[in-house]
This record gives sequence, structure tokens and C-alpha cells, in this order.
Amino acid sequence: AAVDKGVDFANYFCTYAFLYHQKEMLSDRVRMDAYYNAIFENKHHFLGKTVLDVGTGSGILAIWSAQAGARKVYAVEATKMSEHARALVKANNLQDVIEVIEGSMEDVSLPEKVDVIISEWMGYFLLRESMFDSVICARDCWLKPTGVMYPSHARMWMAPVRSGLADQKSNDYEGAMDDWHCFLEDTRNCYGVDMSILTKPFAEEQKKWYLQTSLWNNLHPNQVIGTPATVKEIDCLTATVNDIAELRSNFSSVIKCNTRLCGFSGWFDVHFRGRMEDPAQKEIELTTAPSVDNGTHWGQQVFLLNPAIPVYEGDDVDVSFAMTRSKDNHRLMEVELDGRVKQPSGNLFQPFRKTFFVE
Amino acid sequence: AAVDKGVDFANYFCTYAFLYHQKEMLSDRVRMDAYYNAIFENKHHFLGKTVLDVGTGSGILAIWSAQAGARKVYAVEATKMSEHARALVKANNLQDVIEVIEGSMEDVSLPEKVDVIISEWMGYFLLRESMFDSVICARDCWLKPTGVMYPSHARMWMAPVRSGLADQKSNDYEGAMDDWHCFLEDTRNCYGVDMSILTKPFAEEQKKWYLQTSLWNNLHPNQVIGTPATVKEIDCLTATVNDIAELRSNFSSVIKCNTRLCGFSGWFDVHFRGRMEDPAQKEIELTTAPSVDNGTHWGQQVFLLNPAIPVYEGDDVDVSFAMTRSKDNHRLMEVELDGRVKQPSGNLFQPFRKTFFVE
Ligand SMILES: Nc1ncnc2c1ncn2[C@@H]1O[C@H](CSCC[C@H](N)C(=O)O)[C@@H](O)[C@H]1O
Ligand SMILES: Nc1ncnc2c1ncn2[C@@H]1O[C@H](CSCC[C@H](N)C(=O)O)[C@@H](O)[C@H]1O
Repeated sequence: AAVDKGVDFANYFCTYAFLYHQKEMLSDRVRMDAYYNAIFENKHHFLGKTVLDVGTGSGILAIWSAQAGARKVYAVEATKMSEHARALVKANNLQDVIEVIEGSMEDVSLPEKVDVIISEWMGYFLLRESMFDSVICARDCWLKPTGVMYPSHARMWMAPVRSGLADQKSNDYEGAMDDWHCFLEDTRNCYGVDMSILTKPFAEEQKKWYLQTSLWNNLHPNQVIGTPATVKEIDCLTATVNDIAELRSNFSSVIKCNTRLCGFSGWFDVHFRGRMEDPAQKEIELTTAPSVDNGTHWGQQVFLLNPAIPVYEGDDVDVSFAMTRSKDNHRLMEVELDGRVKQPSGNLFQPFRKTFFVE
Repeated sequence: AAVDKGVDFANYFCTYAFLYHQKEMLSDRVRMDAYYNAIFENKHHFLGKTVLDVGTGSGILAIWSAQAGARKVYAVEATKMSEHARALVKANNLQDVIEVIEGSMEDVSLPEKVDVIISEWMGYFLLRESMFDSVICARDCWLKPTGVMYPSHARMWMAPVRSGLADQKSNDYEGAMDDWHCFLEDTRNCYGVDMSILTKPFAEEQKKWYLQTSLWNNLHPNQVIGTPATVKEIDCLTATVNDIAELRSNFSSVIKCNTRLCGFSGWFDVHFRGRMEDPAQKEIELTTAPSVDNGTHWGQQVFLLNPAIPVYEGDDVDVSFAMTRSKDNHRLMEVELDGRVKQPSGNLFQPFRKTFFVE
């Protein structure tokens, strides 16, 4: 389905036109350090080379690329942020190296192919926003056969977690429904209309909101109660849109302690390894895993089960995971988790199966 | 400029597709009582008549119209809420009277002209959302020459106010700028890029956000420090889009006590009077003025001045008021206030002139 540009702008791009939002990303130390080190500890990839920055935003990655010695940097940005990027480039006296181009990557034409494509395209749980599509498109059109991708690899992780959010959201949902029943009574008594026929759709709407929408959270590592598992690996040099539009995989996690399984957490990491024939001198990793000191603005996405399931050290959680794009908005995702807890004795717990919305 | 339907849906209609949002409106007692009384205390306008409900939402106004004896009610709703409205109509056994039609009012065709157009089209400060355009369109196409409008009249008010929000928002803005300067320093020290060229646009963005965007508030009546003034009167039977797309008027207010003029508050009321030849039996008013017990979900819009201006009992505040639609979104507004404080002695205070965004 073709995406309407105007709608896509209203739903997605608009926030990126605010310096406030760019500043949030520029203040994420983990993110910044990773890209900074990836570039400056691998100058050989940039020295005298041509670079394309897909979605340059404030222009930061383009500027670093130029400072690392790039001959030419094309910095493409869909929003009016391009004007600020251009001003920043000029103020740093890099206007002869960096060309800021306002436009969608999909529509832009460059005068030459490039040696490096750099981009910070990652959304919540890696693929939300579907911006990697634009990087793939850029790569297929503009990367030389010998070119490298920054980052070069990405992985998605899931792990079972415990979290007070499970009870909290259940309570919120119950509260909303109690409130609804008072509302029904008032509407019948004061205004003579019986709205009880809407109870079911209202409950569904609220269930979706409170219980089926994944939550942003920076978890403490000890909230992770089982071994994390990789649910997807992406080679940025070869991945196709087909590879990422629909994910399916099975994973298994061993529970580490006696506790309650409140749900699952999803996060990602990306790596800067260059390419096989032209590897990084220093490999850099950017991870958004639960961490005490190195939280990111991505946090983790939490998928809650209701009710929580009691689990014991040594139990196995087997899950079949599927992620697809929302029918109405290709930048949002739906996640299905279909699983069960298996005790070492062989006993099986009641299986769970739930659909979540990554909004 | 023609409005793109998809964009308009993404920006505007989408929220109305949630029962949660409809419930908020259905829980506004002041709003509900006014429409309920307007209908049931003026049954002669409905008995045996044909009615058009523009933007029926949950269907409540259509249902009341039918309960008041309407022969036929056309209930038009742009969003999928129409399906819930249809279910509600059926559950209340009114499916023979009420026809729920999903579509934009502008696109819908009715089999006949109607005696009454009822609609709850009011946004913040009356005109935000520009939904009255659709009511005008419905009226010009589908109202009989003898038909009546529910509501029949609307007025916009402004009054000088005092409010702690003025200092609070100033502080928020200062805080955001302090934070920005720390950010600049970090970015220079840690990442070798001087972003100070972006200070001015960042300040403008934050100023717009904290200081130039009107605020939702349910003011206490004693925060109103001068006589309220009408800035616009609308006769719903005759008003044209031209009459409301751009407002200009001068108003004057007498200060009631020695205090600080922190800004202005804007609100509205609407009236149900029928039409001259076919008046209401009982006139009903719905007001969103500051009130201790009768606050509405509309509240008032507050337009803050920075800094506040000291004023004294008996001072005159003269303001020239202009309201236009935002260039980028016809459903949002820009308000310009250009004024001065005149003391009885004839002394003039430093004039103020400020543009605000009703977002
Ligand atoms: N298809 C596309 N074409 C051009 N710009 C795009 C795009 N998809 C996303 N973007 C832009 O990509 C940016 C992603 S945020 C990253 C900004 C910057 N590179 C940084 O690392 O700080 C946003 O500014 C967004 O507007
Ligand atoms: N041009 C248009 N055509 C059809 N519906 C419209 C419309 N403009 C706004 N609406 C709908 O009008 C409703 C306004 S809210 C009022 C809902 C209901 N009449 C009530 O009083 O409770 C929303 O549901 C919105 O989707």
C-alpha cells in the first residue's frame, strides 16, 4: 500500500521538525558515544570518502563524518530541520564538505554513489517507525558495491520480566471500567439513555489502551528474570524490506529465580563492524538493554501479561514471536506472543497468547 | 486552500473515533444539561419534524431528538464512531426514526431537507476545530427556509485575568533555556560540535511553546479582574464561513481591583432561541465562563502576558483583538492582542502586542 506523504508527515515526521525533540536524541549519551566512537575510532572509513547521512536531523552525524575527514557528505532530511542543519554546518565551517538536502530519501537524487551510509534510523524495539525502509532504499540506490553501512548490524532481543506495571495497568483498567459503570448509571438516570450496549466496545478500547499496548520503560537489570534471547538479526548491508516487514521466530528462556512472570521486554542493539572486506578497526556496540547507568531514550518496550504467571528457577519459557506492521499505519507494529511455561518436571502451565500494539 | 482528507483525519478526526473521548463529552454536565433542556423544553421544534445532527458522535443528540418526537433524524458522523452510534440507536429501539450515516457532512446527501439542524460543534474558544464550517455547509444545503438551528446563537468573550500560570510558564521557559546552555556546553566539550547557532531558533521554539500558546484552564471567577467583553456574536442561521474565518474587534474592560494583569481569558456561550418566526418556548444558555461549580471540559483559553502589568481599580484596558486560522492547519487559530492600560488620570502604560497560538 502506497503511503500518503501528507498523512505520513502529520503522523510521523512532524515531531522531528522540533529542535526540542532533536535535543532529546542529542542528549542521549549512550547513543551519542556509540556513533561518535564508531566514527572517530574508524576514521579510515571516512578519510577522503563520500558519505550519505539518511535523516540527518540536526546534522550531527554528517558533521562528525566531515570532521573525521570525509571528502563529501550528503545529508538528507525530510523536515524543515534541514534548515537548522544547514545553519549548523555553516557555523562549523563545513559547508564545502556537507551538502544538506531537504527531501524524503526516497525522492532525492545524488550526483554520485557513496562509500558510506550512516543513519540513526532505530525506533522503539528497533523497527517502530519503519525508517530502516528508507535506509534500505538509500543503500540500494546510492551505496557503492564496496560501501559500508553505519551501523552494519542490528539485533532484537526479548526476555521475560517482572514489573509492578502489570498490576498497575490492571488496576487502571479496572478503574476505567468502574468509572464507565457509574457513567452508564448517570446517563440512564439523568438523560434517559441506556448506553450499556457500548460496554463491550468501550472495554475493548480500554483493554487495548491499558493492557495491550506495549509500554516504554527503562527496566532495572534485575527485573529481567530469564535468559534474554535474540528474536531477529539484521545485516544492514543485505536486509530487504521483506525481511523486516514481518518477523516470526521462536525463542526460549530459562527462568533464573522463583518469581512472577509479568510479561516480556523487547530491546535492541546495533553494531558498527564495517564490512567483511573492509572491517572496522574498532568495533562499536550500541545497546538499549536494561542497565543501571546506561539507559537510553529508547528504553525497552514492555509487553505485559495479565494475570502474571508464577514461575520457578529452572522453568523454561517457550514463546513463538511474531511482529507485523499495523494495517492502518506502516510505522506502527503489532506483536503476537504465544507461549507456555515448562517446568523441569515436564509440567506445563496454562499457555498464554496475546496480541500487543507498539504505538 | 483545499483540505486533504487523509491529513485532516490524522490531525483532527482520529480522536473522535475513541469512545473514551466521546465519554468525556458525555460526562460534561453543563454541556449535557444545556442540550437536554434545549430539546426537551422545546419539544414543539422536534415533534413530527425532520432533524439533521451534524457530527453525531455517540448519537446522543439524535437520540434525544427522536425521544422528543422527531419523525426522522439524520445523524451524520465522519468517523467509525458511527458504528457505535448505530448500535446505540438500535439498542434504544430508535432505528426506524434515526438514520446514522457515516461520512463527512460535506460529502453526504440526504433524501430531504430538514426542519432542525442540531450540532455540538464548539471547540476551545468556540472556533478551534473550525467545525462550524461543516454546520454552515449543512445549513446551506439541507435546512428548510423555515428551519431552526440548535444552537441558534454563539458569542465569544474576553476578559483580563490574573493567574499564577504567567510566572510558572516564564519559569518553565527559563528552565528550558538554562538546560539548553548546559546542553551546548556538553555537546562542545564531549562531542566537538558548537551548536550555539541554534540558540535563537531553539529559544523561539520554546517561547512559542511556553509563552505564546494559549492554555486550557478552568479559572475561578475571582481570577477575572475586569469586565468581560464580547468579541464576536454569531447568528447560526445567517453566519458565513467568511464571517468566522477572520475575526477583528476592539474591546475595552474596566479593572475591578488593584492587582497584576497577567493576561486575558477567552470563552464562549451558545444559546438555543429557535428563530424569530418560530422561537423557543424556553431559551437555554450554555456558557463556558469561569465558574466555581459549573466548569466544562472546554474550560477557558488563557493568553498570558509576560511580564504581568500592574493595574489599579478603575483602569481601562483597551485591546484590539484579531483571530485568524493557522496557515498550516485550518482547524487551529492564531490570536493577536494589541492593547494598552489607561489610568483614569489619562496616564498610559507601556502597550503590549502579542501573537498567540490556539493549538
Ligand atoms: N525517508 C526519510 N527521508 C529523509 N529524512 C528522514 C526519512 N525518514 C526519517 N527521516 C529523518 O530522520 C531523522 C531520524 S532521527 C536522527 C537524527 C540525526 N541523524 C541524529 O542522529 O541525531 C529525523 O530527523 C527524520 O525527520
Ligand atoms: N464535517 C463533519 N462531518 C461529519 N462528522 C463530523 C464533521 N466534523 C466533525 N464531525 C464529528 O462531530 C463530532 C463532534 S463532537 C460531538 C458529538 C455528539 N454530537 C455529542 O454532542 O456528544 C465528532 O464525533 C466528529 O467526528
